[in-house]
Amino acid sequence: MKVAEVRITPIAIPDVPLANTKGVHPAVFLRAIVEVTTDCGLVGLSETYGATRTLEGLRAAVPGLTGLDPYDLRDLRYRIEMALPGAGGVNAPTALADHKVVDVVYSAFEIACLDIRGKEVGRPLYDLLGGAVRKQIPFGGYLFFKFAKQDLTFGPDIMGEVMSPDAMVAQAQHMVAEYGFKSLKLKGGVLEPDLEIETMLKLRAEFPDHGLRIDPMGAWTVPTAKRVVDALGNILEYLEDPCRGMDAMAELSAQIEMPLATNLVVVEFEQIIEAVKKDAVQIILSDHHYWRGATGAVHLGEICRAADLGVSMHSNSHLGISLAAMCHVAAATPNLTYDCDTHYPWSTKEIIKGGRPPFVDGTLAVPEGPGLGVELDLDAVGELHDLYRAAMVIDRDDTDEMLKYVPDYIRKVPRW
Amino acid sequence: MKVAEVRITPIAIPDVPLANTKGVHPAVFLRAIVEVTTDCGLVGLSETYGATRTLEGLRAAVPGLTGLDPYDLRDLRYRIEMALPGAGGVNAPTALADHKVVDVVYSAFEIACLDIRGKEVGRPLYDLLGGAVRKQIPFGGYLFFKFAKQDLTFGPDIMGEVMSPDAMVAQAQHMVAEYGFKSLKLKGGVLEPDLEIETMLKLRAEFPDHGLRIDPMGAWTVPTAKRVVDALGNILEYLEDPCRGMDAMAELSAQIEMPLATNLVVVEFEQIIEAVKKDAVQIILSDHHYWRGATGAVHLGEICRAADLGVSMHSNSHLGISLAAMCHVAAATPNLTYDCDTHYPWSTKEIIKGGRPPFVDGTLAVPEGPGLGVELDLDAVGELHDLYRAAMVIDRDDTDEMLKYVPDYIRKVPRW
Repeated sequence: MKVAEVRITPIAIPDVPLANTKGVHPAVFLRAIVEVTTDCGLVGLSETYGATRTLEGLRAAVPGLTGLDPYDLRDLRYRIEMALPGAGGVNAPTALADHKVVDVVYSAFEIACLDIRGKEVGRPLYDLLGGAVRKQIPFGGYLFFKFAKQDLTFGPDIMGEVMSPDAMVAQAQHMVAEYGFKSLKLKGGVLEPDLEIETMLKLRAEFPDHGLRIDPMGAWTVPTAKRVVDALGNILEYLEDPCRGMDAMAELSAQIEMPLATNLVVVEFEQIIEAVKKDAVQIILSDHHYWRGATGAVHLGEICRAADLGVSMHSNSHLGISLAAMCHVAAATPNLTYDCDTHYPWSTKEIIKGGRPPFVDGTLAVPEGPGLGVELDLDAVGELHDLYRAAMVIDRDDTDEMLKYVPDYIRKVPRW
Repeated sequence: MKVAEVRITPIAIPDVPLANTKGVHPAVFLRAIVEVTTDCGLVGLSETYGATRTLEGLRAAVPGLTGLDPYDLRDLRYRIEMALPGAGGVNAPTALADHKVVDVVYSAFEIACLDIRGKEVGRPLYDLLGGAVRKQIPFGGYLFFKFAKQDLTFGPDIMGEVMSPDAMVAQAQHMVAEYGFKSLKLKGGVLEPDLEIETMLKLRAEFPDHGLRIDPMGAWTVPTAKRVVDALGNILEYLEDPCRGMDAMAELSAQIEMPLATNLVVVEFEQIIEAVKKDAVQIILSDHHYWRGATGAVHLGEICRAADLGVSMHSNSHLGISLAAMCHVAAATPNLTYDCDTHYPWSTKEIIKGGRPPFVDGTLAVPEGPGLGVELDLDAVGELHDLYRAAMVIDRDDTDEMLKYVPDYIRKVPRW
């Protein structure tokens, strides 16, 4: 069985102005849909980032994939490294989707190869990862401060403006009522720390039994983070990326009891040991889109178990192919003991047949395959590819977008 | 696809008096042959330790395996843990084959499950591990001081007495001439350290381009080990388990440049982090028989890569099913950069069809499957099972055997 054809389709999906410390989501988010067809007619699917650098990486890799055996992940890695000799490493200065291109491109095709293998044997993808320890995957509600959407050209708003503690409690109530989430994560670093402390305390009062987290994306100095932790007490499951950089995280960690999680300072296998030696983090966020695919994410789980680290799951804005892959990885990672992040409720479109899968009590049933267990709705892909062409957005720039809402906004990390 | 039947067959294989610091090999070594048959008639094979505790563990697990899906390794683990609730952990005081019973039993059945899966899809086992980075697996010559065999009841001797540096050079010459090995490992801790230093220096003089190693199995104190390292200079690829215990290894490691390897102080995933923090070892020996099967051995490789540790491969006395599994693991472990250990030349029997595979220039071709790529020779298994029943040996006791050759022998670790 050999790869015969690979198709990469960029799509744009209407987004809403979700805020983070670096800016706000633009009018659309971008994804790339990968279809890998074998000489025996099996088609493997995948979904990944759709911004320029990933898209160029995917396209540069495509010619070298003809003839690849979908079982041979070492050869896949080799072919991609050969096709992207200059791709950046971990020290590249820009955002995740822009560096680590080799890992990102590899991950996209790894999922497609596993999808093919699952289809060949009529097995769900999780069975190729060692089997499922859970079939209902728990997700958490991902709360965002947000602006009311100004430009409705590409799609409507969701929930209007949410820029105060009380409005955030209302957002959380909606999320919990609609999806049944049992935990809630706030994308912080947007309002003054005192307002975010107030937000978390109000969430705790409203949801006494929910798991709570806040992720200010490195917005706080170590003293600010220490002050926030002191004010919050022990109401969080964990605090995600409060400070920028491994050493700042380690400095904070040494002063507090609350576990720290990260998807920023540990994004490569080789960084785990440094984090352990410095005791900089206690929980690592898994993500098959850059942790070398589903196999890599399962390896990450094993490494975290060996290193006595917790595992949670990271999300970017995504659709149903990524969601399916996240479910399979979560099913096959025994020590993924926190509810997974997902941006999924913040979009309304879908590109898989059958449309958007329903959350029940905050959980999704892992698709039972074969492979990922999802099929492409080509009409839906076509519609969102048309939007990609119409929107003329080829990169994500949250800071630039922010200037539309806050003209004197200045990007600054740490901010407080 | 479900497991329908499991058969465990203990066998005894004629051995020769190979010495180590704890004693000498008895007249036979013991293995257990595992045959797992599914409801669709596929048979998965495996080979593991055959001493009492492993055999009892395997047999205790068998009733619980009916109905197991060979893809569901998490369920396999669960069923084995349920069947062996009292099995020892890493702190059990006795030899490897006696503790870690859960891992050992799991590993045996994991290989059989992978063999079944490979047979189902017509793929070599390495393809289920991510693909092969090498198809010719390099092995090293495993040198042993030995006695001339006294009791030939169960089989003939090989090479007679080898108890001096010059005799060891002759053994190495024979090994290299017969098998083409490009590296040589001495099981040390048997003669006085000065004689073993002399042996290694003579091996280096005779084989200037061969990789050399010595493994005294913890026989030396830290000062003795330091003295040996100073005397040997940089002629070794690595020094394996010179001292007993993690802290002694760390103490030595801090004093020397030569990398230290282990299959004694790091035998569990959870011990890797401690070893890294203490910089106790720089190379870990993989072994699918106790590192949670082939999947676990591949995970070990990934962890070692992340932790900047080297990977080599450990061996016990074994036959061709284990040999095939070792080849598949070595094929699928990119960073297994040292020639694998094997006791294989020290036996003459085989239980797989086609007999003993030939070494070419010290390498073996990885069997091209499906699965492990080997089939049982049931007559040969029957013959060695008869020997198991006749020999009345159900455990390995090197120290007791040693008293037949050295009546005043006293087991002592460290010895020097």
